[in-house]
Amino acid sequence: MNSRSEASPLSRRGLLTGGALGVGGAVAGAAVGIAATSADTRSAAPVTAGPTAGTDIGTAIEPFHGPRQAGVATDPQAHAAFVGFTLRRGVDRAALGRMMRLLTDDAARLTQGRAPLADTEPDLAVLPARLTVTFGFGPGLYAAAGRDERRPPSVAELPAFGIDRLDPAWSGGDLLLQICADDPLAVSHAQRMLIKDTRPFGSVRWVQRGFRRSRGVQAAAHTQRNVLGQLDGTANPRSGTTAFDQAVWVNDGPDWLRDGSTLVLRRIRAELETWDKLGRADKELAVGRRLDTGAPLTGRHEHDEPDFAALNEAGLPVIPDFSHLTRARVSDDRLKILRRPYNYDGAPDAAGRADSGLIFAAYQADINRQFLPIQRRLAEQDLLNEWITPIGSAVFAVPPGCAPGGWIGERLLG
Amino acid sequence: MNSRSEASPLSRRGLLTGGALGVGGAVAGAAVGIAATSADTRSAAPVTAGPTAGTDIGTAIEPFHGPRQAGVATDPQAHAAFVGFTLRRGVDRAALGRMMRLLTDDAARLTQGRAPLADTEPDLAVLPARLTVTFGFGPGLYAAAGRDERRPPSVAELPAFGIDRLDPAWSGGDLLLQICADDPLAVSHAQRMLIKDTRPFGSVRWVQRGFRRSRGVQAAAHTQRNVLGQLDGTANPRSGTTAFDQAVWVNDGPDWLRDGSTLVLRRIRAELETWDKLGRADKELAVGRRLDTGAPLTGRHEHDEPDFAALNEAGLPVIPDFSHLTRARVSDDRLKILRRPYNYDGAPDAAGRADSGLIFAAYQADINRQFLPIQRRLAEQDLLNEWITPIGSAVFAVPPGCAPGGWIGERLLG
Ligand code: HEM
Ligand code: HEM
Repeated sequence: MNSRSEASPLSRRGLLTGGALGVGGAVAGAAVGIAATSADTRSAAPVTAGPTAGTDIGTAIEPFHGPRQAGVATDPQAHAAFVGFTLRRGVDRAALGRMMRLLTDDAARLTQGRAPLADTEPDLAVLPARLTVTFGFGPGLYAAAGRDERRPPSVAELPAFGIDRLDPAWSGGDLLLQICADDPLAVSHAQRMLIKDTRPFGSVRWVQRGFRRSRGVQAAAHTQRNVLGQLDGTANPRSGTTAFDQAVWVNDGPDWLRDGSTLVLRRIRAELETWDKLGRADKELAVGRRLDTGAPLTGRHEHDEPDFAALNEAGLPVIPDFSHLTRARVSDDRLKILRRPYNYDGAPDAAGRADSGLIFAAYQADINRQFLPIQRRLAEQDLLNEWITPIGSAVFAVPPGCAPGGWIGERLLG
Repeated sequence: MNSRSEASPLSRRGLLTGGALGVGGAVAGAAVGIAATSADTRSAAPVTAGPTAGTDIGTAIEPFHGPRQAGVATDPQAHAAFVGFTLRRGVDRAALGRMMRLLTDDAARLTQGRAPLADTEPDLAVLPARLTVTFGFGPGLYAAAGRDERRPPSVAELPAFGIDRLDPAWSGGDLLLQICADDPLAVSHAQRMLIKDTRPFGSVRWVQRGFRRSRGVQAAAHTQRNVLGQLDGTANPRSGTTAFDQAVWVNDGPDWLRDGSTLVLRRIRAELETWDKLGRADKELAVGRRLDTGAPLTGRHEHDEPDFAALNEAGLPVIPDFSHLTRARVSDDRLKILRRPYNYDGAPDAAGRADSGLIFAAYQADINRQFLPIQRRLAEQDLLNEWITPIGSAVFAVPPGCAPGGWIGERLLG
């Protein structure tokens, strides 16, 4: 009566003793992606009832194995879950090693459209939609592992900033899973399976769900708008360039972190009630860029070089000295950060005030050298501060990737 | 220095005195959709880095004006926000009329990719991604309007069921906005603009955000999976058929509701902890359908007719008498309901237990005649009850659509 064999719990012995990748998953058919055409401009064809999209968004796959973890240089997927864990007391290096072997195997399968060994809903694993699972190690993990001497100095709680209104509910964490996909169900399913396998080792500290434009709403190369209506991401380093690699990946840090990165995750509330009261010109002055095109106030196109010396008729800088653009700007490519933010939008209160903002995720080789100077300048002076409030903060080292048969974190915990 | 004119609040006089549709929005360029090819099967092309999707998902438009509201027969979009409001004391028929004129105009613009009159983030309006805004009138609205005699008898709180564990936080409501689009940012933006314009008239009672598969993950015709891993929607009436029209649209109800519908919105928690402990065969018995194909346990294909008389070797019905399928089945097409559910997935607790389930939205011409008998049977006996718990409940009449220049609810409130 039941044509399929049960996907009931399989022995994890093979997995935990090294033979992980040889064990077949319950769902075998790896889905594959096909390339569609890209266009940066909008179509002007006659109105129709709307497209019946194909299925290529669901079957698209991001490779899991490799020298670097996926989910950093990966063109940001539409949906993200950031899951922070607190390690249980007594979880030591051996336990962390077991946990990471298990989670690595889960992630390697899920991202390739295959069900993890103990997947209780294997049918939900077959359409990964560019799923990536990226692991981060928070400040507390190293001491638990008896390896605090290998903790990168910058992987520590950030200094307090005057602008901060941090809520412990969104802060800290010993372990991070960043789960991204172009399909919310794929994120949901992966999140649930990964949390289940993390349970013996840690408790869930927080989950932050975020979104960007759906795949296929804009061309992939297009800069996204955030909940404040701004084009957000313009000045990011471009993946595939030397500048990107130098800024994002650890080249001269601790050996175990080579080809890894570090992540600062800040939950930043957007004060939309007062932002809404601002005129368009003032919104543009706060950032130093136009809302429509994203061009600097001294330019015409999004990627025009801003001219910080240009003055207006009144003799004042066209791009204000305290604009977000001016204050955040870094000229040395090696000192830039990779911003990979997601919007969040929780339930509004009874008065209809939105609970919305950015899950601001910044990747860089070294937090102290790259993120901190920028954040210090912004905390000191930034017109935008009037309309944004950091309410959560966490930092993680992002270990390098692994080869088939290996596991994430092996050079630290192995 | 600023090349655009301000999108500052325009006078709403023209709008509120009838000339609404003549007033130009701040953002003029209506985006348009192009048809892409449909495919029900997955591609088997070689693996690539994943598709660079086009932009047709973002520019697709659902018509707003017409005899029936959009968002009911509309092929379900990937994202939904259900927003329930409590009317303020003293909001009478005249005020309700002003509110609905305003909201209708907002919705007419937003759904066509144009910014509403007072849009503070007009740049976010240009990619509607099949946005629909559907209005519902809850039980309390009629008395407020001095029109309680026109309230359809079935638009009243549902009777209590033994299975219910209703939380007031997810129940009731005088006014509903159902906002759906294939892009989460489009939903977010529309929600914010519509809530702002509703503020003078009501407070937000609850917001329920839900999701289905992203557009382009599966062919549009494909049945979706829910968070329990089931194919959900198989036996729904097909839009475009007479059976659909008879089941969903009011033909012989109150005159003002002709071409409208009624909506039952239940928040139903999935007990995933215990569901996960169930074997695959038991999960299939609970529903009466296979997990992989969605076929009835007596058939091979999803749309095969179930054979409730078939017995297994032990002489028991192959499809259990208490299966969800058996209990929910309705043979008379006119008594069917249209299920248009969304998944929800809130933050798990510290122990990693998911807060997940369905925002179960059922449309039908008459709740008492269609929804209630099914719900009564299910509440009485349904194997699935062990793993699902209703935690929220609300009912609304869904007024007919309107022509350009008209407004939703005009036949009741005008
Ligand atoms: C809710 C909070 C924030 C919002 C809404 C926001 C928005 C923006 C916008 C609209 C731009 C211009 C376009 C672009 O290049 O992406 C920008 C640029 C930038 N932001 Fe932010 N930002 C936020 C927080 C931060 C934080 C916390 C940092 C780092 C500490 C940061 C660092 C930068 C950098 C480095 C640039 C590029 C500057 C350049 O070189 O041109 N931002 N941001
Ligand atoms: C979380 C709650 C629920 C889940 C997970 C669920 C799941 C399912 C599944 C998997 C099917 C079979 C496939 C299909 O035809 O879609 C189904 C069918 C159906 N369900 Fe539910 N359901 C739920 C709640 C309800 C409720 C509350 C009602 C109405 C009171 C309902 C009415 C129906 C009907 C009418 C059918 C079609 C039966 C037929 O004629 O074949 N369901 N449901």
